[in-house]
Amino acid sequence: MKVLVINAGSSSLKYQLFNMANNDVLAKGRVERIGMDSAILVHEPKDKEEIKEVSEILEHTTAIRKVLDKLVDKQQGVLVSIDEIDAVGHRVVHGGEAFSGSVIVDDSVKKEITRLIDLAPLHNPAALLGLSAVQTNMPNVPNVFTFDTAFHQTMPKSAYMYAIPTIFYTKHKVRRYGAHGTSHLYVGERTAEFLGRPIEELKIISCHIGNGASVTAIDGGKSVDTSMGMTPLEGLMMGTRSGDIDPAVVTYAMGKEDLTVSEANSMLNKHSGLLAISKISSDMREVTEAMEAGDQNAQLAFDMYIYRLRKYIGAYAAAMDGVDAIVFTAGVGENSVVVREAVCTKLNFLGVEFDSERNKTGRGFDKRISKDTSKVEVLVIPTNEEWMIARDTFELVSKK
Amino acid sequence: MKVLVINAGSSSLKYQLFNMANNDVLAKGRVERIGMDSAILVHEPKDKEEIKEVSEILEHTTAIRKVLDKLVDKQQGVLVSIDEIDAVGHRVVHGGEAFSGSVIVDDSVKKEITRLIDLAPLHNPAALLGLSAVQTNMPNVPNVFTFDTAFHQTMPKSAYMYAIPTIFYTKHKVRRYGAHGTSHLYVGERTAEFLGRPIEELKIISCHIGNGASVTAIDGGKSVDTSMGMTPLEGLMMGTRSGDIDPAVVTYAMGKEDLTVSEANSMLNKHSGLLAISKISSDMREVTEAMEAGDQNAQLAFDMYIYRLRKYIGAYAAAMDGVDAIVFTAGVGENSVVVREAVCTKLNFLGVEFDSERNKTGRGFDKRISKDTSKVEVLVIPTNEEWMIARDTFELVSKK
Repeated sequence: MKVLVINAGSSSLKYQLFNMANNDVLAKGRVERIGMDSAILVHEPKDKEEIKEVSEILEHTTAIRKVLDKLVDKQQGVLVSIDEIDAVGHRVVHGGEAFSGSVIVDDSVKKEITRLIDLAPLHNPAALLGLSAVQTNMPNVPNVFTFDTAFHQTMPKSAYMYAIPTIFYTKHKVRRYGAHGTSHLYVGERTAEFLGRPIEELKIISCHIGNGASVTAIDGGKSVDTSMGMTPLEGLMMGTRSGDIDPAVVTYAMGKEDLTVSEANSMLNKHSGLLAISKISSDMREVTEAMEAGDQNAQLAFDMYIYRLRKYIGAYAAAMDGVDAIVFTAGVGENSVVVREAVCTKLNFLGVEFDSERNKTGRGFDKRISKDTSKVEVLVIPTNEEWMIARDTFELVSKK
Repeated sequence: MKVLVINAGSSSLKYQLFNMANNDVLAKGRVERIGMDSAILVHEPKDKEEIKEVSEILEHTTAIRKVLDKLVDKQQGVLVSIDEIDAVGHRVVHGGEAFSGSVIVDDSVKKEITRLIDLAPLHNPAALLGLSAVQTNMPNVPNVFTFDTAFHQTMPKSAYMYAIPTIFYTKHKVRRYGAHGTSHLYVGERTAEFLGRPIEELKIISCHIGNGASVTAIDGGKSVDTSMGMTPLEGLMMGTRSGDIDPAVVTYAMGKEDLTVSEANSMLNKHSGLLAISKISSDMREVTEAMEAGDQNAQLAFDMYIYRLRKYIGAYAAAMDGVDAIVFTAGVGENSVVVREAVCTKLNFLGVEFDSERNKTGRGFDKRISKDTSKVEVLVIPTNEEWMIARDTFELVSKK
């Protein structure tokens, strides 16, 4: 069985084609600047040369058609016919409380995702565009939705409720949902495999730190708390997001600088985080470089980023009354030797014995970066959300 | 030397008169409903009967005059003459970045506190009213200001900065200031005395939990982080305050329920917390009673309150990379056996061995509630902010 995985944004989409028989990625790629006359399609077929093509792509249906064309292209294709694609899996950011796992898409699912647009105004419409584009081009292929929020639906009420009047929960669905769930689930499962221990007996703190970033407490394989909240703004300091802040600062700042609600949201989501403090970049690589060159703002941004992550690790150790493994994943987590070192060398109180040498060895594979004698395992596990979506899609469609 | 300590609110004030020669409280009391024709004055002289008097008290100057009258009253007084009062100490909520300790009040201090009204619009004007009332009634007595924020001025920049554009810090003073500093400082010092160890080598987590609540990480005697932020809204779940929340919820809620900035602030500060979730009371005693009677909302409110406090303890253990003592103080901290038990019995990962029996013994004195073998000491220390203010006042005026 072959599964195509689509991750659609409002003006871009990424794809990967999996051969489920041997867990192989046959091709992957992306379309950027959808809606422009100079949209870019990048197609990377396995064992063949990459194609980069600039053309007019005004909407998602055309984007998907061009992707399918590439997949069956005589030179750069990997399929003889589109009919070889048995199912399509889609990443959906917000599944609200309705979805605690992936589902085969039908009209009621579409209706529910439409209802949830309010909670993810930028992301859920894009997923529906991606779905519609696939259904137009491949009307007979089953579609599956995998939700970023689904894994976190196991959180207890004491972790997901905010201490505000409950009408905001009952009427407006205000609660913690979290995000990066597919990644945290993957990391949890891989951690158990790597350690050769049943996930049911493990307490894992999964640190998904990329441009967006969240930490999840995984107790016995279940998400019991996560740092992102109703939206991806809460929690850790991120590339351009503030993370945790005194809620009174929001209204104070609005008053002081005469900001509208949407300007305040934009300030906190797009102009804050590493970018605001370093005044250099939202990218941890550039912040680290500047810091190493002696820049004081970059140093402060780095220190705040590390300090806040360390506090979340402590908080989640308290949430589970213990921790067996701390795991790093995503862009910064998989690649930044200095971030991992700065976080882990001050976790002696948990019994972490960090191994600086192991931390420096290669990337792109699962590895242990704690000493063999460490009470708490520290790992790096490269995440693979697309593979999780493909697997769920395969399983659901096979059972059908 | 005798020192009068004043804690003035906008429509109330509390007072205590100390004899510094023997650390004795000669009298204490309060005036409530200032501004009304039925204001209440309660005067509790040492070893004499309490007086409760209802009369018209329209502003603070009259309130202070009536207090002074009581202090020299033939029957219920404790002084022969007002001239015996050598100095007056005032509690001030917000000292901004200008004050890292108590100061003798002069014109420049008054000017600075006036400048800081923006950051504490409800509290700082009340302190100035209290000062003015004292100066009118006792023009020759020196006044000292003690600030709730002062102790936290030792926080490193990585703990006090928010990850938002730095113009909000440089232009509008937006940063973490914290509160309850006088209480946390008292608790820190008493903890070191109780344990018979130098404070310089102790890592203390001080939990001041009353109707307002904050946790402070005290490393070597210095505040290195605290849960309240620019305002007392951030941090723990409180009687009527939300504590931490996704900052995006503020603007989302404003949009959904068409709230103004001031209505949003009022919702988060006055109608949230224990009250909003339990739907019963902002008072932990009543919430606990309802929970014990089987009320589900009270149970959820209690669980959230405990869970969030436990996470802060874990976070601050991470902040200091260890903890030697966890200390409870203020209304809930000193009196709630069940809150302390619920928090501490799931801190095994820190090496806490809780002693349920010790936890249940009397109140009103310093005590250990962990086992003798516990790696981390758990204590209850009744706070005494008034005594700290009197001590600072005495020391500053003596040196003058």
